[in-house]
Amino acid sequence: MTKWLVGLVFLAAPLWAQDGPLPSWNDGATKTAILAFVADVTDEGAGTFVPPDDRIAVFDNDGTLWSEQPVYFQFMFVLDRARALAAADPAWASTDVRRAAVAGDVKGILAGGEAGLVELLGATSAGLSVEDFTAEAAAWMAAARHPTTGLPFDAMTFRPMIELLDHLRANGFQTYIVSGGGIDFMRAYAEPAYGIPPQNVIGSLGNANFAFVDGEPQVMKDAGIAFIDDKEGKPIGIARSIGKRPILAAGNSDGDYQMLQWTTAGEGPRMGILIHHTDALREWAYDRDSHVGRLARGLEDAPAMGWLVVDMAADWAVIWTGGAGGRPAQ
Amino acid sequence: MTKWLVGLVFLAAPLWAQDGPLPSWNDGATKTAILAFVADVTDEGAGTFVPPDDRIAVFDNDGTLWSEQPVYFQFMFVLDRARALAAADPAWASTDVRRAAVAGDVKGILAGGEAGLVELLGATSAGLSVEDFTAEAAAWMAAARHPTTGLPFDAMTFRPMIELLDHLRANGFQTYIVSGGGIDFMRAYAEPAYGIPPQNVIGSLGNANFAFVDGEPQVMKDAGIAFIDDKEGKPIGIARSIGKRPILAAGNSDGDYQMLQWTTAGEGPRMGILIHHTDALREWAYDRDSHVGRLARGLEDAPAMGWLVVDMAADWAVIWTGGAGGRPAQ
Repeated sequence: MTKWLVGLVFLAAPLWAQDGPLPSWNDGATKTAILAFVADVTDEGAGTFVPPDDRIAVFDNDGTLWSEQPVYFQFMFVLDRARALAAADPAWASTDVRRAAVAGDVKGILAGGEAGLVELLGATSAGLSVEDFTAEAAAWMAAARHPTTGLPFDAMTFRPMIELLDHLRANGFQTYIVSGGGIDFMRAYAEPAYGIPPQNVIGSLGNANFAFVDGEPQVMKDAGIAFIDDKEGKPIGIARSIGKRPILAAGNSDGDYQMLQWTTAGEGPRMGILIHHTDALREWAYDRDSHVGRLARGLEDAPAMGWLVVDMAADWAVIWTGGAGGRPAQ
Repeated sequence: MTKWLVGLVFLAAPLWAQDGPLPSWNDGATKTAILAFVADVTDEGAGTFVPPDDRIAVFDNDGTLWSEQPVYFQFMFVLDRARALAAADPAWASTDVRRAAVAGDVKGILAGGEAGLVELLGATSAGLSVEDFTAEAAAWMAAARHPTTGLPFDAMTFRPMIELLDHLRANGFQTYIVSGGGIDFMRAYAEPAYGIPPQNVIGSLGNANFAFVDGEPQVMKDAGIAFIDDKEGKPIGIARSIGKRPILAAGNSDGDYQMLQWTTAGEGPRMGILIHHTDALREWAYDRDSHVGRLARGLEDAPAMGWLVVDMAADWAVIWTGGAGGRPAQ
């Protein structure tokens, strides 16, 4: 760019500030820190430069890229699947936890402990090919509505985070989801919602088998859990699926602690981001005492670790991609 | 392109035939079939068009992208690691299978059965971070030489297959390795050798754990096998890591059968490729009775399945990327 053109751009910047990157982020230290990090790693002349191949950014999903209250959205999908399966065949509801799911009795489901949840996940997905399961999840996503906002679930994705994903990709980053959620469920909507294709989605894995159904070879979902992509599992899942240590990691709960820890311990410029749910008016406010997305240790250690804590109420001008930037009731 | 330019290119084509795609493939039915498939799926006007996002091509590694005789090259890496570990600490050779490895006694290693091999894999990699392990493998690749050809192992990659990978990528395909080999071993050389980055390598997985070493968080390799990416495991590994069914799969052994079967059973244009090792002069000739890369069922069923069988002796003008296109002795 010639000198006068650079000058023109700088002069013009204040006039079109909202047309710059991250328009849904309020101006302030948080936005400045993110933009500075991206500028640093893409500045070929600087010692902070990172080649595009190594610009790996990983994002937790529930609570980081979309809401997770009153319970993880995948949990609502599982309840709806249970209802549909029992409607088609009442004999399906053969155990306490299955009956609780059909009744939408969350307390009854949780009474079954982890074994009950694993049974429920298996019973609502086993016997479907991975392709059919993802089609079921996509159909659910198109039809289902959130119990308190009435919004489609994929309208409750965070607009500021989608802008961040876009800004990173525009600067040569590869963006990944690294979530405790089921991998095949997330793949049903991650590409239209976030621009993240199936091969960039890392998540928890159910068992699977290769079988012939109506004479056709299929990869079938099976009961049982093969891998839980949470806490210590996140760096392991990243090492297995990407084979490189990211330079940026974003999460919102203590389940993301080890992912941020491993990411930011690497050489060169690194960024760890924690989304702090502080906005009871436009979304939900929770951290240390929440039953979903509990954030205690991360909040405590963030200053010492150099992690950026995003204050949703202060830092985000808009929350959701749908619903007029917040709860539609407002 | 203007008409006269098109005419010029067509007239000129025979003069520079070797400058077209796949120059190391001899002209004939095999090369024609491959080029026609790529032309079909990239022709936007045709019913055979496949959008770039779905142009997923998967390749077995041992025997498909490089040689695998007299034993898988990773096996030689394991023997060299065993020797180095025993040299540093003689107490390392504490079991029969470890002593056999240090002595290079293949029969003694195989006497330990699968449990012995798993022990050996674990004992030569456990206690290293994934990053250190990959650095060890890369250093070995730079220094080690093949026992009969004297070539660096990565000079024994197949030039025709690397041209095929390049041609696919030039036509909007995403190329993946899907191999029974260890994922971290392959990631040490797959990018320089094949242009396939770490995140596009799918392989067998050892156990791993997240730990602090000298105060630094690390993903550490552990003893034991978490996933074997062979036979029925290949379609499962693809479903997990890519989340899409490929449209092209290439292999060379019955370990690739299910991957080709699942790939080619999908809707629309599909291609299954089997590399048949027929060239005893320039490489090795083996199929039904080989202890590595056994190919019996695939060869039998290829015509009925519509799979393309590549006859290395007839179809390839050049074999290796190194060694003057064949064994250096010739």
